[in-house]
Amino acid sequence: MNSLFKRRSIRHYTKEPIKPESIELLLKAAMAAPSAGNQQPWHFIVIQDRRILEEIPNLHPYAQMVMEAPLAILVCGDISSEKHPGFWVQDCSAATENILIEACELGLGAVWVGVYPNEQRVAALSKLVGLPEKIIPFSLVPIGYPAEHKPPSNRYDMAKIHYNRW
Amino acid sequence: MNSLFKRRSIRHYTKEPIKPESIELLLKAAMAAPSAGNQQPWHFIVIQDRRILEEIPNLHPYAQMVMEAPLAILVCGDISSEKHPGFWVQDCSAATENILIEACELGLGAVWVGVYPNEQRVAALSKLVGLPEKIIPFSLVPIGYPAEHKPPSNRYDMAKIHYNRW
Repeated sequence: MNSLFKRRSIRHYTKEPIKPESIELLLKAAMAAPSAGNQQPWHFIVIQDRRILEEIPNLHPYAQMVMEAPLAILVCGDISSEKHPGFWVQDCSAATENILIEACELGLGAVWVGVYPNEQRVAALSKLVGLPEKIIPFSLVPIGYPAEHKPPSNRYDMAKIHYNRW
Repeated sequence: MNSLFKRRSIRHYTKEPIKPESIELLLKAAMAAPSAGNQQPWHFIVIQDRRILEEIPNLHPYAQMVMEAPLAILVCGDISSEKHPGFWVQDCSAATENILIEACELGLGAVWVGVYPNEQRVAALSKLVGLPEKIIPFSLVPIGYPAEHKPPSNRYDMAKIHYNRW
């Protein structure tokens, strides 16, 4: 069973720091994602500064786990030169999912914290890390060595499958 | 190197049919994706009927490869009971990315063909497979045994990485 199936949302972490080579692999995984017209309309803010991390739960109602995380990656979309309007959301989603899978592959735990399209969260996180106008904070991925362990979940539901037509 | 890094967009396929157990694994991978509030707002149309497949290039300008594909999965979003408005796009993107990675894992080739938010493609594909009003065709993933082989691509770009702040 590969990491794609083992991945769970992990919200508790040990204090062990993440190795720089692991951070690089997480970012390489993100950038290995497909994107519309191969535009790669993403940027990544690697946040390890505790003053910044500990401000985040004041700005986002579901980000309390950041207090425990040694690292969070803020995945951002670049809408400054969209060739395929609106598809940046899908591209950044694929990059986010790749980070989650690679984290599992590396023995790390991570969780996808939604930011966009919630306007309040977008505005607050943009300000926190000083994003330019055309760079949109899309998702936040807190990451650390897991301090909780969950078995793979089974979400397979045959009622969601249709053959040839609805 | 895992499939996440090996995955490439494959648009040429052999005529070899895909085993039913592989189709099941592709759908299990899709449904292993995370979703906002674990709402799993997705449905999957598994298209193998050649009459339906061969109609698709008439409805979508970038779907010519479907003519060669033994199978395409139409990933759809269910907006009938959104608890986290707008996040279904991200959930369906994660499911789509998982299908692409699992296809690579199984020795198959696949490509993400964008549908939503292009209104014309959404309308045409909804009609083709008879989707109800609140089910939105999101992405189309043609899949087959690869008849083209591409080395892993390196999209890693340090200019996209920022530390703590922009």
